[in-house]
Amino acid sequence: MGSTLPNIAEMSNGRHSRRDYERLDRDDGLAPCRQHFQLPEGVVYLDGNSLGPLPVSTPGRLQQLLLEEWGTGLIRSWNEAGWIDAPTRVGDKIAALVGAATGEVVVTDSTSVNLFKLLAAAVSLRGGRPVVLTEVPNFPSDLYVAGGLEALLGARCELRVVERSEVPARLGDDVAVLMLTHVDFRTGEVHDMAALTHAAHEAGALVVWDLSHSAGAVPVDLHGCDVDLAVGCGYKYLNGGPGAPAYLYVAERLQSSLTPFLAGWMGHEDPFEFGNRHRPAGGVRRFLCGTPPILSMAALETAIDLWAGVDLDLAWEKSRGLTSSFIELLESRLPRGGFEIVSPRDSASRGAQVSISHPEGYRIMRALVDRSVIGDFRPPDLMRFGFAPLYTRFVDVWDAVQNLVEVMEGEEWTRPAYATRLTVT
Amino acid sequence: MGSTLPNIAEMSNGRHSRRDYERLDRDDGLAPCRQHFQLPEGVVYLDGNSLGPLPVSTPGRLQQLLLEEWGTGLIRSWNEAGWIDAPTRVGDKIAALVGAATGEVVVTDSTSVNLFKLLAAAVSLRGGRPVVLTEVPNFPSDLYVAGGLEALLGARCELRVVERSEVPARLGDDVAVLMLTHVDFRTGEVHDMAALTHAAHEAGALVVWDLSHSAGAVPVDLHGCDVDLAVGCGYKYLNGGPGAPAYLYVAERLQSSLTPFLAGWMGHEDPFEFGNRHRPAGGVRRFLCGTPPILSMAALETAIDLWAGVDLDLAWEKSRGLTSSFIELLESRLPRGGFEIVSPRDSASRGAQVSISHPEGYRIMRALVDRSVIGDFRPPDLMRFGFAPLYTRFVDVWDAVQNLVEVMEGEEWTRPAYATRLTVT
Repeated sequence: MGSTLPNIAEMSNGRHSRRDYERLDRDDGLAPCRQHFQLPEGVVYLDGNSLGPLPVSTPGRLQQLLLEEWGTGLIRSWNEAGWIDAPTRVGDKIAALVGAATGEVVVTDSTSVNLFKLLAAAVSLRGGRPVVLTEVPNFPSDLYVAGGLEALLGARCELRVVERSEVPARLGDDVAVLMLTHVDFRTGEVHDMAALTHAAHEAGALVVWDLSHSAGAVPVDLHGCDVDLAVGCGYKYLNGGPGAPAYLYVAERLQSSLTPFLAGWMGHEDPFEFGNRHRPAGGVRRFLCGTPPILSMAALETAIDLWAGVDLDLAWEKSRGLTSSFIELLESRLPRGGFEIVSPRDSASRGAQVSISHPEGYRIMRALVDRSVIGDFRPPDLMRFGFAPLYTRFVDVWDAVQNLVEVMEGEEWTRPAYATRLTVT
Repeated sequence: MGSTLPNIAEMSNGRHSRRDYERLDRDDGLAPCRQHFQLPEGVVYLDGNSLGPLPVSTPGRLQQLLLEEWGTGLIRSWNEAGWIDAPTRVGDKIAALVGAATGEVVVTDSTSVNLFKLLAAAVSLRGGRPVVLTEVPNFPSDLYVAGGLEALLGARCELRVVERSEVPARLGDDVAVLMLTHVDFRTGEVHDMAALTHAAHEAGALVVWDLSHSAGAVPVDLHGCDVDLAVGCGYKYLNGGPGAPAYLYVAERLQSSLTPFLAGWMGHEDPFEFGNRHRPAGGVRRFLCGTPPILSMAALETAIDLWAGVDLDLAWEKSRGLTSSFIELLESRLPRGGFEIVSPRDSASRGAQVSISHPEGYRIMRALVDRSVIGDFRPPDLMRFGFAPLYTRFVDVWDAVQNLVEVMEGEEWTRPAYATRLTVT
């Protein structure tokens, strides 16, 4: 197999040497952002679409939170250290990344729990239109959430899962809400948020977008697209740490008409009244439920603060540049047989992720990880590589392809150890 | 007012001097546990029923998690650092504190979200019996959760809130589930879990207990009481940190027949299958939903590990001793007018908390906090003091009462600044 590859030393035409990629890094206006992340020496980390790396500032912030705020301030820190306002304060910072306004985003719970809240509210608001419309390739956990709501509500909710191409045509007058994930977690394909939101509105439906694979990676313009509802994850491109709290967005125009059925004390108009009737807070805070995890919230806020001052247009441009050059290198250097690039070639339709399929993708990825090139694998045969604009270098692109070529040439992936499936893959 | 008090120096009869309380600390077999907590010098912390203090081991554990597991291990730590098993691993440790078996408790989400899951499952299992029966003095957020479910399900769920004394009589054949909080957060009164669970079962209903104010403070014997379902909080007597993840318990005999309507990828039988249909995991893990906050989870686990080797009977005995001596001192030293001890005098009916009412309770508590005696206030007039067995000293009991006496004698609480309500009180 290796013998079909061109000699690497001869590939210095165009941008086909590592030095060319070093040059791209030198010209990268966002290159200084990488120093804000602790990335292990020698590791090519291309899995920020699954778990973003540790910001350098996070351990210090957590020590401060633990020793000063919790350890010394104790219960008083709910006021004095601003814990009580963290869900809206961090929400407002995320709003700036996704084209939302102040007061439209809160951080709390998980993406799945937040999606449940918004779907339940949307189905209730559009009473008589029971359908949650979505597509087969949507993120599985989002399908599970909608399926759970359907099972709970019986005839009042119907989950309708159709092929991607059928979505616009199936926006009938029975649809309460169109539920889509902005960037496909398998292929990296980006939906046309503006067009699909418009189509949903034309049909009298609301729309809820899952931004888990787009916020922090590609442009998101919730207001520009007139989006009703959205949810998203804190631990992928937002670098909030494993299981970081998630966020939800509700357009200001809808906030007072949506019911928070997951009603908890933090979403009460006056949480410390301790009355027996839930009076939902005005604004998006009504979608808080129980007490959010403050340690994990602080780690997320520290990570979000790294975006302050970042030129977002430059960030999205860099993401596209990284994925485009990865695809170019793959096309010029990968052996022909077995591999297929499943991500869109058109960079405007692509998230910050490139997925390639191979029948032995699982074993190949295991071999890459053992070479410290970290992507991940999704069944049945997808190897995924994420390119986050704040810390991924152009040389990482080169090194990833170089290692992939070597893994195939040396047939490392055939080692018996790689046949065993890990729990988390 | 002060003139009606006996002279403090003369009160050395019985256990009425600080030296007597120092002696109790010297005889306390659990006194060494206090060194495992970072309690600020000079602070009398009696608010562990709202937020437990920082374990000394937590900052080091979090640094290890941040720098080694997240920073260096990155995505690999889901396997290699055991993040994926944390909800059940920590759950099993909590099970040992509440009389449950291995495989019956998971840690995830908030108490409110977990309660929603279990109520929805219970109402569904007992189809045709729509009532969630509870009592007026139940924890407000629990009432909000049940009210939210009622609002979502319409006629299929009816929240029935009755006076405490009426609960047994209202267990009719329309009741799906009896929902109670084990220890009353206002008065500290403990329900008879065995008797009420038995009464619910006799009526064909399930029972869900909220253990937030009991686990880690008083005996809880879920198996001994044949309890069906329970939820509880990680940040009060379990010392997991602000907003620590909560836990839920499902008796093994019920696990396979209860539906997880908040269905997410972590509760799937094979989360990494990424299939489009949710197949609930066997066992209690099916009640996981989204990804839990691993940083907050690690802090909780570190705190739970402090219970290893603790003689639980001794801990509950110490709690009772602390609250009993606090009540004795209050009765002998507090001025007559204005104060009322609202917690039960019978220590078997009392949690690890003593509440006293006073029309000016809010201002008096503010004055106490300014003297570094930290309890809290609950409307309309309750001052609450929590006595956690692992770190509260008998001299704390003395010092709290001494400061309360001085606040009343010196009329400190009348200062204008104490009239202002803080956001969190």
